[in-house]
Amino acid sequence: MPFEITDELIKQIEELILKQDNETLLGLLAEEHHADIAELLEDLNLEEATYIIKLLDSEITSDILMEMDEDDREKVLKNLSSKEIAKELDELDTDDAADMIAELPEERQEKVISKIEDEEHKADIKELLKYDENTAGGLMAKELVKVYENWNVLKCVREMRAQAEFVTRVHSIYVVDENEELKGRLSLKDLLVTSTKTHISEIYIPKVDSANVHDKAEDVARVMQKYDLEAIPVVDDKNHLLGRITIDDIVDVIKDEADKDYQMAAGLSQDVEADDTLWQHTRARLPWLFLGLLGGIGAASIMGGFEDLISKHAVLFFFTPLIAATAGNVGVQSSAIIVQGLANNDLKGSIGERLFKEFSLSLINGLALSLFLLLFTWIWKGNMLTSIAISISLFSVIVVAGIIGTFIPLFLNKRDIDPALATGPFITTSNDIFGILIYFWIAKMVLGI
Amino acid sequence: MPFEITDELIKQIEELILKQDNETLLGLLAEEHHADIAELLEDLNLEEATYIIKLLDSEITSDILMEMDEDDREKVLKNLSSKEIAKELDELDTDDAADMIAELPEERQEKVISKIEDEEHKADIKELLKYDENTAGGLMAKELVKVYENWNVLKCVREMRAQAEFVTRVHSIYVVDENEELKGRLSLKDLLVTSTKTHISEIYIPKVDSANVHDKAEDVARVMQKYDLEAIPVVDDKNHLLGRITIDDIVDVIKDEADKDYQMAAGLSQDVEADDTLWQHTRARLPWLFLGLLGGIGAASIMGGFEDLISKHAVLFFFTPLIAATAGNVGVQSSAIIVQGLANNDLKGSIGERLFKEFSLSLINGLALSLFLLLFTWIWKGNMLTSIAISISLFSVIVVAGIIGTFIPLFLNKRDIDPALATGPFITTSNDIFGILIYFWIAKMVLGI
Repeated sequence: MPFEITDELIKQIEELILKQDNETLLGLLAEEHHADIAELLEDLNLEEATYIIKLLDSEITSDILMEMDEDDREKVLKNLSSKEIAKELDELDTDDAADMIAELPEERQEKVISKIEDEEHKADIKELLKYDENTAGGLMAKELVKVYENWNVLKCVREMRAQAEFVTRVHSIYVVDENEELKGRLSLKDLLVTSTKTHISEIYIPKVDSANVHDKAEDVARVMQKYDLEAIPVVDDKNHLLGRITIDDIVDVIKDEADKDYQMAAGLSQDVEADDTLWQHTRARLPWLFLGLLGGIGAASIMGGFEDLISKHAVLFFFTPLIAATAGNVGVQSSAIIVQGLANNDLKGSIGERLFKEFSLSLINGLALSLFLLLFTWIWKGNMLTSIAISISLFSVIVVAGIIGTFIPLFLNKRDIDPALATGPFITTSNDIFGILIYFWIAKMVLGI
Repeated sequence: MPFEITDELIKQIEELILKQDNETLLGLLAEEHHADIAELLEDLNLEEATYIIKLLDSEITSDILMEMDEDDREKVLKNLSSKEIAKELDELDTDDAADMIAELPEERQEKVISKIEDEEHKADIKELLKYDENTAGGLMAKELVKVYENWNVLKCVREMRAQAEFVTRVHSIYVVDENEELKGRLSLKDLLVTSTKTHISEIYIPKVDSANVHDKAEDVARVMQKYDLEAIPVVDDKNHLLGRITIDDIVDVIKDEADKDYQMAAGLSQDVEADDTLWQHTRARLPWLFLGLLGGIGAASIMGGFEDLISKHAVLFFFTPLIAATAGNVGVQSSAIIVQGLANNDLKGSIGERLFKEFSLSLINGLALSLFLLLFTWIWKGNMLTSIAISISLFSVIVVAGIIGTFIPLFLNKRDIDPALATGPFITTSNDIFGILIYFWIAKMVLGI
């Protein structure tokens, strides 16, 4: 089903560009979907990609550009004149146009905007640029189909035909009063199954979910997902209809949120992709590795404090990686459950109940693992007391790690800090240190030295 | 914007149930969205939830049930008779109805199906039950609006009015020939802006993306996301139109995929939620903890083999948690980047190129971290040779861990195993062992003992 980008195709296109055989190129790409062409361009070098963008009509290149990776798009836009960019913007829906402008260097933004021909489109884009990109205002488009409650269906259909020309997908028809205040909605289906003589005020559905322009993007995503909405109107504080958000933008928000949490859990501090530069990767990875290193130094210092144990019970030291790893694993498991529960908004009960559940779970897991370890070390080393010391330590470490792993994300969330921070290197590192401290402390007590 | 479930509301509803004051209850819930009522029911006990489900009309309770958590739904369904369940199914779209039936115990499925009144609906549901839930067939609904290419617009609109009654959202109108073969599509918008006298064959768009009924759900999700589709028709191998998939189901697939990867990275072996039972949590967590424990035992055995070092260079043992943690962190970072790149389908270049990039990155990170550690240990312990040994080891471990972390997910993916397996405890554990082995081996070489 999907279009296949083969090495042959790329080679063929590169040759056609070299020969400047525009006719064949146009023929080759004419039938392809903009998303496929965008994928193709990412396999070409910058000059070749720019060549294709300049060659094709702006009706399709605007969509191609929007589909490209942000970094690649930025590079291509650098090679286009302000006028050329403005032409692309003219073809885009206002939300995409605003996103594209926002990525340009500031000194260029003004210049590009001034070159947009359609005055209404220009004003809409300028309005959208005012909103934070992580709010409903930053997601919404100005394109929508709206009718006034005092119209009749005949006038409505006539006006809608004109409006619909500019709206990719109609979804809902919003009904407003003469002050542009949102009153309700009509579905296209309703219109289709209603006689043309009916009056709008008689048929519209007065109940309509809406988002405030300042609502957080995540919250809008949650509401649209919960209520299975495919579009949601956006209003200001006085309920004036400003724009609407469609489900495709929300799919991106959901995907980005999930990717972000995943990356945090993996110890990557910013939005980094496989194809980013070495420098971007280093900036995303090194800080967390450094944090882990500091944790390791902390662990080394702690062990240094128990140096007197090493001559008598060297075997204790052999188990530090096991203790540290288990503490880290338990901590990550507990915190991931909480982070995901918070993200999906399905966490029930108080913090106390959560901690109690995690505590019970740690007892089960701790008992199972430490009994196994007890048997193993006893058989291996034949020293019951040392084996008991190690096992009791493991058990305690599991319980403490589980509680820390549950508590930290809940605590961060209460303080309005992204709880996903609590997963990954942060929790592993702190649990390593706690784990080793508890381990040697208990071992020393049990072994009586 | 969202409906607020307060403790007072819950208390009020519990009291009304106790008093069997159905009238007030119905009045209280009449205006609420099914998703909100579903959330409310999850805060009630099973008897109370069942009471509400039996009280409300099946038109809304079917939607409420679909919105509930799978475990909770299962419990409520146990309290309903086959006839009551069949009534709920009559109200649901075929895809949701099939999903609900599939969750019932097998001996109950037949009984419930036989009680469905609408024969066509029954046949459709039975057909859907044949498909694997992770395929296009498992996602699709039979509800869609279809017209024949030899109709004219007048007949089309008339027939559509009838069909549209049963379809929640129209999205696209599919055009088929007399053999039910998919020919193309019409958008509602097109129909709206076209004169009623036009012939369908003149106005339909012959290009239409479709999914094969056996396509994997993930692949369908990728295509719909890439091409920004809000609905996709599903066909059999002979291109006969069987059903269609809408974007709201795809949003769930995307969310589930992301959640699954996240959970794997966190060492949770199956779909587990914060509110599942202790037993479910134990099954999801214990196997990975046990794997980690085995890794720790492996590490202990390795260290046991270097026992002769401990009397002379005890400090080496203090740094094992640091080495193990860094190896784990680097491994998780590298593999997460690959897993995410594979999931988003944006990984370019050969395996060799990937490994080379990761190698370069490891050199940078390794150099930075090991130089820092060199300085620290030198100042702390004053022994240059030991410090050098530890730092060289750290450097080597980082390079090896990065390469392993990159290679394993790519390798698993080539073998058609979910690469997300390679993140989390699996990679941390193997890197712990490799790391410690490399560490002591290099230290022994450098220190010449």
